[in-house]
Amino acid sequence: MFNGLSAFPLTPLVNGNVDEKAFTALIETLVAAKVDAIGALGSTGSYAYLSRAQRARVAQRATAAAGDVPVVVSIGAVNIDDVLRLADDAQQAGVSGVLMAPVSYQPLSRDEVYRLYERVSQAVAVPLCVYDNPATTRFSFDDELLIAVCQLPNIGSLKLGPLSGTRAEASARLQALRQAIPETITLGISGDAHAAAGLLAGCDVWYSVLAGLFPHAARRLSQAAFQGREEEVARLNAELAPLWALFQRYGSLRPIATLAELSGAAQPPCLPFPLRTLQGGDREQLAALLSGSALRPE
Amino acid sequence: MFNGLSAFPLTPLVNGNVDEKAFTALIETLVAAKVDAIGALGSTGSYAYLSRAQRARVAQRATAAAGDVPVVVSIGAVNIDDVLRLADDAQQAGVSGVLMAPVSYQPLSRDEVYRLYERVSQAVAVPLCVYDNPATTRFSFDDELLIAVCQLPNIGSLKLGPLSGTRAEASARLQALRQAIPETITLGISGDAHAAAGLLAGCDVWYSVLAGLFPHAARRLSQAAFQGREEEVARLNAELAPLWALFQRYGSLRPIATLAELSGAAQPPCLPFPLRTLQGGDREQLAALLSGSALRPE
Repeated sequence: MFNGLSAFPLTPLVNGNVDEKAFTALIETLVAAKVDAIGALGSTGSYAYLSRAQRARVAQRATAAAGDVPVVVSIGAVNIDDVLRLADDAQQAGVSGVLMAPVSYQPLSRDEVYRLYERVSQAVAVPLCVYDNPATTRFSFDDELLIAVCQLPNIGSLKLGPLSGTRAEASARLQALRQAIPETITLGISGDAHAAAGLLAGCDVWYSVLAGLFPHAARRLSQAAFQGREEEVARLNAELAPLWALFQRYGSLRPIATLAELSGAAQPPCLPFPLRTLQGGDREQLAALLSGSALRPE
Repeated sequence: MFNGLSAFPLTPLVNGNVDEKAFTALIETLVAAKVDAIGALGSTGSYAYLSRAQRARVAQRATAAAGDVPVVVSIGAVNIDDVLRLADDAQQAGVSGVLMAPVSYQPLSRDEVYRLYERVSQAVAVPLCVYDNPATTRFSFDDELLIAVCQLPNIGSLKLGPLSGTRAEASARLQALRQAIPETITLGISGDAHAAAGLLAGCDVWYSVLAGLFPHAARRLSQAAFQGREEEVARLNAELAPLWALFQRYGSLRPIATLAELSGAAQPPCLPFPLRTLQGGDREQLAALLSGSALRPE
């Protein structure tokens, strides 16, 4: 489940309500494309903007539509009791795993982050993916803390951000992590623009925003990277460079939601208020990308 | 209401539930000390960790205990429908004003922040204090945006963070802001360590964490600053320097909650899990401060 290509679909909204038909169609596309796992209700799936009831319902729809493809959902929340309830709801919906960043209102200390994972990992019966996501949590894991958290029960994977330094430095870091954690725990990369570099450096899985809407395009890139075809990786990344630039500028959610609107996968406006999809020249650039070959389904 | 000394009390918790007796006692202390307003359910009041029902109940307890002292509560939430419900609950509880930072999960754009205040300001019937709080929202207002937001209905005050630059530069910025916004809107300072500097530069109100637990100590500092007694301001700030250093290092919530535990105003552990009050040498330092004269009630 925590290997290969893990696709994070949007949760399209209509007036603050989940567009279940559009969401189910997204899941069916991912199943048909044979992604290795579906990360429903990730940051891309706007989990933080949805109520507990909405999140439970979306988890149910995801597992119902996913068939044999494992579904992982985010259980992050500011309040610990909410986190534990969300974990229960997700497991009752039949998810194969859960994912959590150290979400908080007050940025957490290292000690507080450890306590959070200690509490949650003991409360779940499915594997937990630990998400290092400073952009939304304002907390950055160091490797010592990652290693400590990996000694807790039920940890299944680490979802890392872009790896710093040279390829050799990144590989060395991943090797050092692997030697210090249980071998059942996989190492994943997030941040789509730098994902192929992470796979080339030795990551096991790409936690991918792109794959949530364009699984074939993400598969082309991940396969080239897993197979070490560096020139093809460079070519594919160059084709996707306009998208990566918009991800960098606006975060990944707004551009991918814009593409969903442009492609008909979601009705505009599909993001939770006050978030907006891109307009004007940026939107036109995405429309041009959509009509080219970089995002083609086959 | 948005002038002078505005005190932000803790919301002490016991096992995730509000300790209403301790909270009410805090409000009564503030009333007795004649603060100009009470900012219940601020960041210091852990609003983000509480349910809608808890927040409604705390707002009711605050207005019931506050007598003639105006109560302002935070209505921030990630979901816009929650924000509007919280605004309704607060107004039904009889608050005199509401306060909101541009809380989000995805950091907001300028345009999105404007849309958020546009929606909320039109939905409230009491004055709204706009809170620029990059530490928790990851969004920083520029003055152009502050001025635009101040043209919206029902804006009562701006809660600014520490002012940068020299005194003259800070005063010039405040003057420029004043000339561009309706004269009914006051300018407030937050970030206790630099609050007196903000008052000396011309702010109308100190939105104070210290005042939520030690209103007399905060009053001594704010009066000295409002009256331009610079030497006394420097002396009082020097006495409080150990506290300001801990605020800088741990955020203001953990040290002030530690002082509440040490002084008997709250039962340990009084913070929402996984947040922790300070331990060890830091706690001992606060105990020493408590036994000195800086925080004395008269």
